[in-house]
Parts: sequence; structure tokens; C-alpha cells
Amino acid sequence: MSKGNMLIAQSGGPSMVINQSLVGAVLAARESAAVGKIYGALHGIQGILDERFIDLRKESRKTLEAVAVTPSSALGSVRRKPTAADCAAIFAVLRKLDVRYFFYIGGNDSAETVHIISEEAAKAGHALRCFHIPKTIDNDLRENDHTPGYGSAARFVACAVKGDDLDNRALGGVKIDVIMGRNAGFLTAAAALARDAADDGPHLVYLPERAFSIDGFVRDVKAAMKRYGRCVVAVSEGIADKDGTPVIAKFTQEVDSHGNVQLSGTGALGDLLAGVVKEKAGIKRVRADTFGYLQRSFPGIASATDAQEARLVGAAAVCAALRGDLPSGSVAIKRKPGKKYAVAFETVPLRSVAKETRHVPAAFINKAGNNVTQAFIDYARPLVGALPKCARLAQLKK
Amino acid sequence: MSKGNMLIAQSGGPSMVINQSLVGAVLAARESAAVGKIYGALHGIQGILDERFIDLRKESRKTLEAVAVTPSSALGSVRRKPTAADCAAIFAVLRKLDVRYFFYIGGNDSAETVHIISEEAAKAGHALRCFHIPKTIDNDLRENDHTPGYGSAARFVACAVKGDDLDNRALGGVKIDVIMGRNAGFLTAAAALARDAADDGPHLVYLPERAFSIDGFVRDVKAAMKRYGRCVVAVSEGIADKDGTPVIAKFTQEVDSHGNVQLSGTGALGDLLAGVVKEKAGIKRVRADTFGYLQRSFPGIASATDAQEARLVGAAAVCAALRGDLPSGSVAIKRKPGKKYAVAFETVPLRSVAKETRHVPAAFINKAGNNVTQAFIDYARPLVGALPKCARLAQLKK
Repeated sequence: MSKGNMLIAQSGGPSMVINQSLVGAVLAARESAAVGKIYGALHGIQGILDERFIDLRKESRKTLEAVAVTPSSALGSVRRKPTAADCAAIFAVLRKLDVRYFFYIGGNDSAETVHIISEEAAKAGHALRCFHIPKTIDNDLRENDHTPGYGSAARFVACAVKGDDLDNRALGGVKIDVIMGRNAGFLTAAAALARDAADDGPHLVYLPERAFSIDGFVRDVKAAMKRYGRCVVAVSEGIADKDGTPVIAKFTQEVDSHGNVQLSGTGALGDLLAGVVKEKAGIKRVRADTFGYLQRSFPGIASATDAQEARLVGAAAVCAALRGDLPSGSVAIKRKPGKKYAVAFETVPLRSVAKETRHVPAAFINKAGNNVTQAFIDYARPLVGALPKCARLAQLKK
Repeated sequence: MSKGNMLIAQSGGPSMVINQSLVGAVLAARESAAVGKIYGALHGIQGILDERFIDLRKESRKTLEAVAVTPSSALGSVRRKPTAADCAAIFAVLRKLDVRYFFYIGGNDSAETVHIISEEAAKAGHALRCFHIPKTIDNDLRENDHTPGYGSAARFVACAVKGDDLDNRALGGVKIDVIMGRNAGFLTAAAALARDAADDGPHLVYLPERAFSIDGFVRDVKAAMKRYGRCVVAVSEGIADKDGTPVIAKFTQEVDSHGNVQLSGTGALGDLLAGVVKEKAGIKRVRADTFGYLQRSFPGIASATDAQEARLVGAAAVCAALRGDLPSGSVAIKRKPGKKYAVAFETVPLRSVAKETRHVPAAFINKAGNNVTQAFIDYARPLVGALPKCARLAQLKK
């Protein structure tokens, strides 16, 4: 492989382990004689367009290791989908800097960005190895068993719901927890990992993969109140009615450049659902929390497995880029068959990861569409790891 | 001291360490020959009224130790202020059970409850040693340097804001974090512990101790945006205008039996403030998160100091009750003078803790009323402990 400069950037919503991928890629590149300069673009493609870079060879190993365990995107991030004009401008910069290896860490929107730039590079006859490094707490990338960032966010959600369920047990009533995940319910489903005993919450789990009906919801809550004397609900911010209209869409208009409605950073959905339960089920104590950005940025509680895989995925992308026999692509995590949890990393075509999202499989959702199955628990448990132990007084166990 | 039965219960909002106090009291009582039966009332005074008890001698030491590190109130909690009729009914139960030692773990409302019961017992000529064991994440009990539950909730808040500030650094704009604390701003102030560098957020901190003005808030946010290019705001759910009307009170009507307006379990205040910033400051990306119940119930991140003190406060209450020379009272945490952090436990009169709340002292709030001082940081740091280390790339430090 001929020697060339490298450029790496981070995109989309941050995660607790996205810096592991950055550091994994940078350290792998620094060990290769084929890589010249290592540019870190600030705020994703915006930093390329604005020519705002730092030299990632200048950062000490010690600093990089400290950054690796720090949540959020150390290079800064961006939510911007490049236009054709943007792409032309990006190539001009890459050519000027003699960049031959381009790495972009992000979700499916980012994979699409990499795909567009890769195709434009090919058209322009510029030899550029483009690799997408997966990252999304939503766990919604196709080709992947799961994605870096998910395990840690899922761990936050499971811990939060575990504590919240204990809180609800003490004071009663209905508690609604609104969890991130625009189109895919994997993160909301992780709330179910909070359960130890059969009567532990969450008692109801609503994912965007199933049509949400207010009447059905109220019926479910009443039934849970009758059965448990209380009710904890985990609900995705992305729940939509049978026509596919997000429940929250009636309350907000803001959209980003990918055309996505803003769902996070507002408590409107939780308040709406709490109001409905108060009114239609006649329950007095109803509370709602929206977990918000804490799910992707809380320091100190990352899943060890997630952190390790995020690091390896970054390194794997650099290794794949440096091999002459592999096309540009996206590094995907595949789970190996067998009882013991193990994964492998594979390069897959960019277009197979770009744009479209992966959804929670039907086998992970119960028939009534208001809970997850044991198959989901078995799938998610190794990604999240053991949760803090919580105990109840022996005489209060059912 | 003559032998008598003991009754203990938990009240008010749960905390991460309220079970430490329960276990501290129960284990101390189990070591004393003066204590007969140990009743645990379920859901506070409600459990006494309904005669719902468990036998706390039956729980194994192993179970109690596991419960001690579990968030929320293991016996269940209640928000109910006893009426005169309730008190008569409570005494009838206590007399029937030959209870001579009564312990109630809770905040200032709970101290008031203990005070009322203590006075009614005296009137009725029933020898009853009544002790309030302090607990409140709000840190607003008079006579106390700080209260069990605060350090852990403050630790959650500081960690959450630390991660959230990194998240905001990556994507920019304004982020508003709404933090618990009805009348006292101690928990909101703890957001400032998230800062390492001078340009770290939170850039603005609003406590209920200072009148909140929407215009002043918008001015502050604009100034922070100009200075930092972004802005993270920590704001108490209890902020009120110059007439003392809570900002949120315009949006909710629910009150509890102590006459308190419901502030938590809704995202309305955050959404209101975000809307104001978008509209009046013309900033596009504005997000709000309301930390909600996670602040008091998140498992696995309790402050070690807080957990230890909560345990000791429970034990100290039992020791004080068993001494014949001390009147009934509340156990208060006093900080010893000197550079090295150390505390002592003292019994103080119930009425000096009951009802009224302690506020953040003026020395802890800056002149502009939009931040905390170094004196607050020095006060709070030992209660919260060291936070997870986070790092920035060397070239991006200012």
C-alpha cells in the first residue's frame, strides 16, 4: 500500500464509547508505516469544509487513553448531510492534503455520507480508501448484530429503570420513562434488563416497531395496576400510531437536515402520556421522566464489552483500509454462533449500512406488543454486562 | 433503660442511601438488650395506621447489607401528614404493640410528623422515645451541615452535567438541565462540581434562593453564547419570580397533602425555558433535560461518604434513644472545623428541624445570582467525592 495521509472525524449523536473508536483507529494508524499525517477534522464534515484540523500524531498516548474513556465526541460532532456541492468542496480539501484514508465514525446517516464521498471520489478518480466506523446508541445499523455505543446506553437505561422501579415500589402509582430511539426500539427494550423478580418493572414496554394506541395503553396500565398495585412503563420517544405518525409529532415541528423530527431534548411526550393516564385511567399519582441526553453521555458507567468492542472496531477499520485487497466499506460487528458470547468484525459494503435502519426483530417483541421476550434479554444481556446488585427485604418478596 | 419494642419507618422521597440509615438503626438495635421486637412499618405512618408491619429481627445480616446499598426506601414510603385523628390512631397502635422507641427517617416534613407524634405521646402520658433520622436529597434541613442522601444525589447531578457538558461541546447550542430542589438550590448548585476547566459548563446556575427573571435569563444565555460559543444551564425546578411564584406553577396544579405543588415528574419547566431561549435569543439548537427521579434512585453511584454517614446517622439515633439522659430529637450532622473533612452527630430538638427549610447561604451564590462561588465547591466536594475522570484532546484545550 502506498503511503498516504489519513483523516478521521466523528458525526451524529455522541455516545459513551465513540472516543474508544477514535483512539482505536488513531493508535492502529500510528503503528503503520503506510500512514503519513493523521488529521482529526473538527465537527465532522463541517471541519473538513472549514479546514479545521488537529494533528492526531501530536497527542500523547496517555491523553488518548484518557480521552478514550471520556463520553461524547472528542473531535466535536455535526448533524449535516453533504450536498453535491459540499462533496466537491470536501474532495478539493482531501486532494490538497493528500488524504488517502478517510474514516468517519457515526450511524446510518454517517454511513450514507461516507458512501456519497466514496462515490464522488471514484468519479473524480481520486484514490481514497473510505471507511465507516459504526456508532449508534440506537443499535439500528443493518449488517450489525449490535453497534458500539448501544451497550453503554442500554446499561444506563437498565440502571435508571432499575432504580426508578424501586422508587415506584416505595411510593406507588404510575411511572412513565421515555427512552431514546427514533425508529428502533432496542434502547427502550433494554429497560427490561432492569428486572430481577417477576413483579419488577418495567411492567410495560412500548417500542416504535409496534403501532401505539392511546386506548390500548390505558387498558394495559389499568391491568398492570390491578396486578401489581403500581406500574412502571418504558416507552420509546419514537412511538407512532397505526398510520406511522409519531405521537410526539403533534407537539413539535423542529427537523434536522436529514429530515428527522426532533424527539429528544423535550419532555412533551412523557407529559402527554402522564396526562392521558391521569385523565382516562383516573390514577392520581402519575409521573414521567424523559431520560434525554444522559443516556448517551453519562460518565463512568460504560459497558466494559461495549468499550472494548468500540476500540476494536476503530482499529479494525484502519487494518481493513491498509489492506490492498478489500474495497472501501463499513466495519460490522457479527456475533459468532454458540453459547459463549463472542464477536467478529467484517467489512461490509457502505450502501448496505447507509440510510435505512434496522428494527427490533419480531422475535424480541411479545404478541401484545407491550413487552419484550426472553430472546431479547438473552441477546442484550452480554452487551450490557452485570448491573449493580439491588435487594429487597426477604419478607417483602412475593 | 427499661426494655421496650421499637418501630421504624421511612417517609417522603426516597434516596440512594436511605436504606443505609434503616440498616444502621436496625443493626444497632439488634445489639441492644433494651430493645424487644423491631417492627418495620410499611409505607411510613400509613403502615402504622393500617397495622402493616414486618419483623426486622427476621431479616438476615446478609440481606440487610444488600438492602443497605439498594436505592429507594426498602420499607416503602408515604407522603402523608398526620391529622390529630391520625395521631390518636397511631398511639393506639403503638400502645397496643408496647412500642417505646419510634424512629422515622425523612426530611423536614417527616421531622414535623415525629414532632407531632412526640407531643401527642407526651400529652397521652405514653413513654415514647421519638427520633427523627434525617434524609433529604434537597439538603435543606436546618441544624445540619448537610443531610444523608444529598451527597449521592449531588454526585448523580455532577456526573450527569459533566457528561452533558461534553455532549454540548460536541454539538453546540444551548442545553438546559432542570434539577430537583423545591425550595433549596443545593442539588442544582452541585452541577458546578462538573467543572474541571474554566470553559467547562455549567456556565449558568439558577437556584430558587434568587428571584428568576426570564429577561435576565435570556441576557445571561446570550452572553455565555458569545463567550463560550455554547451554553449549559443548570436550573432548579423550584425557581420563582420576584413575587415568589414558582415559574412552573403556571403550568401545573397538582399539590400533595403538605400543600406542595408537584414540580418533579414533568418536563414542562425545561420545555418552557427552551422555548423562551429559542424565541427570545434566536438560538436554533436548544435542548432541555429534566433529570427527574433518577437523581435520587440511580443504583451503583452513591457517594461513599454519603453512604457511610447515612449508616452512622441511623445507628446514632438508636444510641441516642437508648440513653436515658437525652430527650427525644433529631440526629443532626455537624461538620468539624479544620481543613480535613470530618463530621460529628448531635441530637437536636425536633422542632428546630421540623417544617422550615434551610436555604443555600448567600456566600455560596455569586453576586449576579447566576452561579455558585468557590465556597460552595469547597463545601460540597467532600460530600460528593471524586468524579469519573474525563479528558480533552490537548490541542483542543483553551
